Amino acid sequence: MKTYEEILAGIQPAYADVIEEANVYMDTLMKPLGSLGKLETMAIKMAGITGKVKNAPEKRCSIVMAADNEICEEGVSGSPQEISVMLIEHMAKGVCGMGTLSAYANADIKIVDLGIRTDVDHPGIIDRKIRYSAANFAKGPAMTREEAIKAIEVGIEMVGQAVEEGYEILGTGEMGIGNTSSTSAVLMCLTGLSAEVAVGKGGGLTDEGLIRKKEVLTRALELNKPDPKDPIDVLSKVGGLDIAGMAGCFLAAAYYRIPIVIDGVISAVAALVAYRLNPAVKDFMFSSHRSTEPAYDLIMKELGMEPILDLDMRLGEGTGCPLAFHIIGSACYMMSHMYTFEQFKHDQTYRIDLRK
Amino acid sequence: MKTYEEILAGIQPAYADVIEEANVYMDTLMKPLGSLGKLETMAIKMAGITGKVKNAPEKRCSIVMAADNEICEEGVSGSPQEISVMLIEHMAKGVCGMGTLSAYANADIKIVDLGIRTDVDHPGIIDRKIRYSAANFAKGPAMTREEAIKAIEVGIEMVGQAVEEGYEILGTGEMGIGNTSSTSAVLMCLTGLSAEVAVGKGGGLTDEGLIRKKEVLTRALELNKPDPKDPIDVLSKVGGLDIAGMAGCFLAAAYYRIPIVIDGVISAVAALVAYRLNPAVKDFMFSSHRSTEPAYDLIMKELGMEPILDLDMRLGEGTGCPLAFHIIGSACYMMSHMYTFEQFKHDQTYRIDLRK
Repeated sequence: MKTYEEILAGIQPAYADVIEEANVYMDTLMKPLGSLGKLETMAIKMAGITGKVKNAPEKRCSIVMAADNEICEEGVSGSPQEISVMLIEHMAKGVCGMGTLSAYANADIKIVDLGIRTDVDHPGIIDRKIRYSAANFAKGPAMTREEAIKAIEVGIEMVGQAVEEGYEILGTGEMGIGNTSSTSAVLMCLTGLSAEVAVGKGGGLTDEGLIRKKEVLTRALELNKPDPKDPIDVLSKVGGLDIAGMAGCFLAAAYYRIPIVIDGVISAVAALVAYRLNPAVKDFMFSSHRSTEPAYDLIMKELGMEPILDLDMRLGEGTGCPLAFHIIGSACYMMSHMYTFEQFKHDQTYRIDLRK
Repeated sequence: MKTYEEILAGIQPAYADVIEEANVYMDTLMKPLGSLGKLETMAIKMAGITGKVKNAPEKRCSIVMAADNEICEEGVSGSPQEISVMLIEHMAKGVCGMGTLSAYANADIKIVDLGIRTDVDHPGIIDRKIRYSAANFAKGPAMTREEAIKAIEVGIEMVGQAVEEGYEILGTGEMGIGNTSSTSAVLMCLTGLSAEVAVGKGGGLTDEGLIRKKEVLTRALELNKPDPKDPIDVLSKVGGLDIAGMAGCFLAAAYYRIPIVIDGVISAVAALVAYRLNPAVKDFMFSSHRSTEPAYDLIMKELGMEPILDLDMRLGEGTGCPLAFHIIGSACYMMSHMYTFEQFKHDQTYRIDLRK
């Protein structure tokens, strides 16, 4: 297995020459230039990732990082932490939102326990537990620097494994009560945004809960003083194991040159962490859907990306990824199978028999 | 075959009781209330259409109405009319944008010649030609009232046929050079909007072409004086055969209680015509993607709908429909297969073994 340092050092940007070739080819297809909009840019981006103009990312897998957050002690979450373990076990059975949407998209799911706060023993869940839950970062760091890197390396391991297994496109997801708090804290630290703009209601917080969440996170950042220039420091002090694991996925996807899809705001902040570590990772990312959390748009702005879908979704789990797989797959299929003007011209099955 | 009058009189709104039942059921599913956003509203809307809480609209077909428009004589289109026949024959072969995206979505296409300006003879194209092209409505009415109703009835026939063949969801598309001009003219007349807001560049017009298009359409409305309160009058004086045919599809889909998807701005204006004839048709419509034509948002506002996708697409043909099929299908599959909290509670395969 590759280490974090090897991966980080080995990332290369997308193939500029193949992007150029794909751009030229796209404009030979039988349609007004640019008229398929973002379908065209998706298919061309894919070419830059794989090095092939025509792609068919049909073998699909989402990697779901599961971990709890003791910051919930502060009353910042609308859901009880106790349900995490049940939720991931049900995800493993395919009966939750992510499970059903992935089944419909013919996509597999790898569920990884990085830090669920209880023991988990289920054949459908990969055990890579680093610690039982991240610590309450309102009282001190969420984890050690070593633990954060270990979580990143689990992401690296999972992507490496998926590539070996022949997957052609990856998604990212998470499961862990309290993780919109760690997400907002990481975002506030990395970008300097205030709690007012960076903090939302998460899975289902009340108005009073939202005020408390903003106060708790502002205080936690003052207490921990993470260094915004050192994303690993930020992850370990106010992040979560799930965010670190997904950041590892984004880094490794870039290293292995496989497309990877961002889900909602939590995986988006993991994508931002990876981007701050090495901006070239952006070339390998697709954004699936606009999260209702306000922080989401701010991250997309820095990444220079726009989501494919805008469906007012806020479930998390990775649910945007299987939806995006359909659209990215459509884009690639279109580019691979549409006639060029040249083919069109030489095709003698039609008749030109103008009346005038 | 049903007549236009029979269809119009026979349309009933969605089943309010089943929508209520679906709403209640949706809130029993294992997720925070409303957290799957528009996926939830889509699945619930589907229940109101079919009368069943759980749906699987997997047998899919788009109906593409093809017709030319002699308004092109006025220099309002960026593409030569001569290509219409080639384009629909290539659509029949599945090698154009609509063909490839439909193949990927496992969706069929019915291509109907309502008014291509030349003879068409292709086994993949259904011949229902009403006239060779709509007349240049800058000089007089585009067609007679009888011709407009005949085109609507072809739409009705096609939907009736599709329902008999077992299709469970329909899309709408069009092919016909010059049809963003008829679209804008119909919209300006129905809504009172000025050319400044209702007219866009269509498939690929220059800036000067756009100015000319606005002038031509404003003059044409002054000349023909269609009655905004009589959508059939509007269709016949400044519309197109394709718009009339699609309006017939929307009316018939409501009559037969089958979901139908709007593509871009041209099918959206046909949807608006159907809505003005009978507002209940709205209950049966889904909107696929935001068109880049400015008129599109205005129509959605009146229909009270929002598009599922926003991909800067402006190809037409019906290309948004196969993309939307994936997402609507995902929504229905989620609702049909996700566990309820009750199932979750009775499922003894998970263990609650809290550490604290």
